[in-house]
Amino acid sequence: MPSPLAHKLNCYVRLSEDDRMCLADAMGPSRMVAPRTDIIHEGDDPRAINVILDGWACRYRQFANGRRQIVSLLLPGDPCDPHVFLLDEMDHTIGAITPVLLGQISGSAMRDLTARSPRLDLAFHRESLATAAIQREWTVSLGSRTGIERLAHLFCELYARLTAIGLADGNTCAMPMTQNDLGDAMGQTSVHINRTLQELRGLGLITLRSRRLTIHDPAALARLAHFDAAYLHRTEVDRIVAC
Amino acid sequence: MPSPLAHKLNCYVRLSEDDRMCLADAMGPSRMVAPRTDIIHEGDDPRAINVILDGWACRYRQFANGRRQIVSLLLPGDPCDPHVFLLDEMDHTIGAITPVLLGQISGSAMRDLTARSPRLDLAFHRESLATAAIQREWTVSLGSRTGIERLAHLFCELYARLTAIGLADGNTCAMPMTQNDLGDAMGQTSVHINRTLQELRGLGLITLRSRRLTIHDPAALARLAHFDAAYLHRTEVDRIVAC
Repeated sequence: MPSPLAHKLNCYVRLSEDDRMCLADAMGPSRMVAPRTDIIHEGDDPRAINVILDGWACRYRQFANGRRQIVSLLLPGDPCDPHVFLLDEMDHTIGAITPVLLGQISGSAMRDLTARSPRLDLAFHRESLATAAIQREWTVSLGSRTGIERLAHLFCELYARLTAIGLADGNTCAMPMTQNDLGDAMGQTSVHINRTLQELRGLGLITLRSRRLTIHDPAALARLAHFDAAYLHRTEVDRIVAC
Repeated sequence: MPSPLAHKLNCYVRLSEDDRMCLADAMGPSRMVAPRTDIIHEGDDPRAINVILDGWACRYRQFANGRRQIVSLLLPGDPCDPHVFLLDEMDHTIGAITPVLLGQISGSAMRDLTARSPRLDLAFHRESLATAAIQREWTVSLGSRTGIERLAHLFCELYARLTAIGLADGNTCAMPMTQNDLGDAMGQTSVHINRTLQELRGLGLITLRSRRLTIHDPAALARLAHFDAAYLHRTEVDRIVAC
């Protein structure tokens, strides 16, 4: 099975066979995490880098009054921050949305990897920079996009990210988030999300059925969302998709 | 004059005299940027790292219809992403809010700096991680905080960041943003911002006069905002403030 992490990093820098072997060697034993279970908590000391090998997870913050804000989504191949072990404390929680197969790279293994391969060092840095850009784009969405633009933008982004790692099937991809999850990510109630989904369906832009999203007209959805994939910084993505 | 960048980095790792000299040597000639002028545009190739030496700037995205979203604020000592030269293209614009004194470190000088000093490498990485955490917290604010909580949180954050770099004077700090700027950052109209400022004043929490913000009761403002400074990751900040 090709490594989801190598697949993801190869979107930023073309990796050598040696890089792929080093990556595989650096990965500790993997474990399954049940859906709706936390992977690491706010306040924990992040000694290793968690890597999503399969399934979906999210970074979130929870307030004392129960309000939850999902701040980003983690998809197969995503390292949960390649340099996080340099901090003393997590400032947010990471939780599984679906069953998640989780790998780990220790801080010292990450140091060895990046010291040994300038390509891996560059790929991990570009991955971090692209993650920062995605976070900025979520800030833009919540601050400046209307409800329908916001959800359309999320669907465009997820479809583009899943396509880049070979997990879209034509115009269809997984969408395992509930309407509550979508609400927690979009800063809206699930009732509002339900109405917005109906609007998007009514416009003939999407179908959402059995946890699968089909985008009938990607260009029209992107126009509605003011979506421009440049912020994903996927230098090598076309090559990957063609693989 | 002590270097604002060294002051900032010292919040994350205690720098040696040699580190400070290397940083000073790496900095190219500085230049003044007029207020309301762009420093680097979306689409530009970021060949060097811009460093704010004095004044305030912001990262923003502008839509074709004129809507502008300020996604983050850049204060004295802030590098505009220490690894940005590893990307091919800017995904956002950086613009000056006040007159800005701008320094630059070339990509190759940054590589030399971090290869020579593990402390500087660690400090720049921690700075990037803290910047990512700030971006997540802005996402939380826009998604889950009410109007008054959101503005209160921004004031708490700016006051904490300015205190860390020695730019607060007791409970008072600079606040050069107009109500339009605050609206563009908070995803609200300037009319809404004006009303929220009056509410915060009415509660006796702040005074905003002549572009200076005074926080009369920092603990009460933090409670209202659900503000917890942990996400700023300022490991060494207490030592710095005491200097």
